[in-house]
Amino acid sequence: QWMMLDWKPKRPDMLVDPFGLGRIVQDGLVFRQNFSIRSYEIGADRTASVETLMNHLQETALNHVKNAGLLADGFGSTPEMCKRNLIWVVTKMQVLVDRYPTWGDVVQVDTWVAASGKNGMRRDWLVRDSNTGDILTRASSLWVMMNKETRRLSKIPDEVREEIGGYFVDSPPIVEDDSRKLPKLDDTTADYIHSGLTPRWSDLDVNQHVNNVKYVGWILESAPLPILETHELAGMTLEYRRECMRDSVLQSLTSIVDKGVGDLATSGFVECQHLLRLEGGGEIVKGRTQWRPKYADRIGNLGSLPAESA
Amino acid sequence: QWMMLDWKPKRPDMLVDPFGLGRIVQDGLVFRQNFSIRSYEIGADRTASVETLMNHLQETALNHVKNAGLLADGFGSTPEMCKRNLIWVVTKMQVLVDRYPTWGDVVQVDTWVAASGKNGMRRDWLVRDSNTGDILTRASSLWVMMNKETRRLSKIPDEVREEIGGYFVDSPPIVEDDSRKLPKLDDTTADYIHSGLTPRWSDLDVNQHVNNVKYVGWILESAPLPILETHELAGMTLEYRRECMRDSVLQSLTSIVDKGVGDLATSGFVECQHLLRLEGGGEIVKGRTQWRPKYADRIGNLGSLPAESA
Repeated sequence: QWMMLDWKPKRPDMLVDPFGLGRIVQDGLVFRQNFSIRSYEIGADRTASVETLMNHLQETALNHVKNAGLLADGFGSTPEMCKRNLIWVVTKMQVLVDRYPTWGDVVQVDTWVAASGKNGMRRDWLVRDSNTGDILTRASSLWVMMNKETRRLSKIPDEVREEIGGYFVDSPPIVEDDSRKLPKLDDTTADYIHSGLTPRWSDLDVNQHVNNVKYVGWILESAPLPILETHELAGMTLEYRRECMRDSVLQSLTSIVDKGVGDLATSGFVECQHLLRLEGGGEIVKGRTQWRPKYADRIGNLGSLPAESA
Repeated sequence: QWMMLDWKPKRPDMLVDPFGLGRIVQDGLVFRQNFSIRSYEIGADRTASVETLMNHLQETALNHVKNAGLLADGFGSTPEMCKRNLIWVVTKMQVLVDRYPTWGDVVQVDTWVAASGKNGMRRDWLVRDSNTGDILTRASSLWVMMNKETRRLSKIPDEVREEIGGYFVDSPPIVEDDSRKLPKLDDTTADYIHSGLTPRWSDLDVNQHVNNVKYVGWILESAPLPILETHELAGMTLEYRRECMRDSVLQSLTSIVDKGVGDLATSGFVECQHLLRLEGGGEIVKGRTQWRPKYADRIGNLGSLPAESA
């Protein structure tokens, strides 16, 4: 259902992106960058964490804008946006993970943008194993413009549309929109609540805001350990409602929507619902996650791992 | 005072390490790997965080062992170490940072090992700006072997010495040993205490332990905000005492040893002392950090940054 992108296996010395800096492909509409998965990007089960994956999405999005010569402020705003004090704000993110890469794997990330309604932009990503060509991840996100002084949403000004419109691809989203309404989640309906989450200094980005990738870690904070230990995240839908500042104290709420038969650890597919909110009230992120059992053979391998590392 | 390594400016297409996967240089004794600094590796002041830097050190150390064909368990243990249930444990780490790279910079990390006393190993790193050749960071670390079953320290067995001895370089440490004894730091002597630190799921490595790089973030948690905002970390000495498990709850203590004249924000060079300990008692890491004012021109630039990012 997604854009068919050219792909063929390549020897390492024939990599499209030998310097890992990315380049424009596909008639100038798709930006492609390779990432070698590093040891510190893998988690407890030896595979890249979902935060790593989302970091790679962020990096390719910025490099796409940079490569197009449109990066005016370092964070995705174009010259005409900067003139008008406009910034991009993500409102929704959907991610589907077929397989997580491991240390030493090289992933190839393709990204492109499209119009979304009259005043929005959609950005999609397709992540492949650069060695086998297997699809690892698909992601789709929605963005709107906000005036950073008034904090009000803005239409896309004609001058900005001139800058970016030529890059819009005419294709359906790579991840079908999950428009199921997220039901109300609060103290009475949540199965798990993790309170007192505060940004660490190192969680802040250049604007002294918490980067939206960090939210994912916080959402997972309230996911029950039996799921984190036995399942892997297969899909995620996040709706971003408001930003989190340095002094914010957050609560992460999770409820299990569907866990099939048996207890959490032994169940098959599990669906959860999440809310990240300010302790004083105010929704930051609402979301939904889908989990599948980790592969049996991978669990077998884990059993024989050394118990310690240096 | 450190090993003189060959370095000359190179055009991007002449990079020693085009694929960013690293290679052995210098008669097989030095391992070299390039890293392009990514947008998500920079912090609130637009430069790479010290954790990023330490991640790069970890990655090159592992790739060095891997490239030498000695990586048996994925975490630095050689085949002969694995046979004997031995793992490497870091006991001390000293880092000096001359300058932090920023997004898009490519850094070149050289690493090598040397003997340390009769039963220890030293690993040094030299990090340069791959474009200018400027030295960015020097780091030196000490390692011993531990039996992962008995938790007792071990001598280096002859068979292991056979494996690794040929890689030992005969050179003084790249960072002179700071052997000043760290004075006792406790509730009465600490200026700042941050309690209730717990590992997040994403802080755990494949052994379900907190990776030692994460400790640095926790240590900085108790550093006073005026310092974090106006100063940058120039140097750090860490002594690792025991490991932190998933259920550990930690306290981070900081005392200001020397802050020169004026208040913290306007002072010049600042020296701090740190302790990371279990809430129930038990020292995890003791340390010392040195801070210098951020460059005036960089602060000037920060003032004109957009206030928001998406």
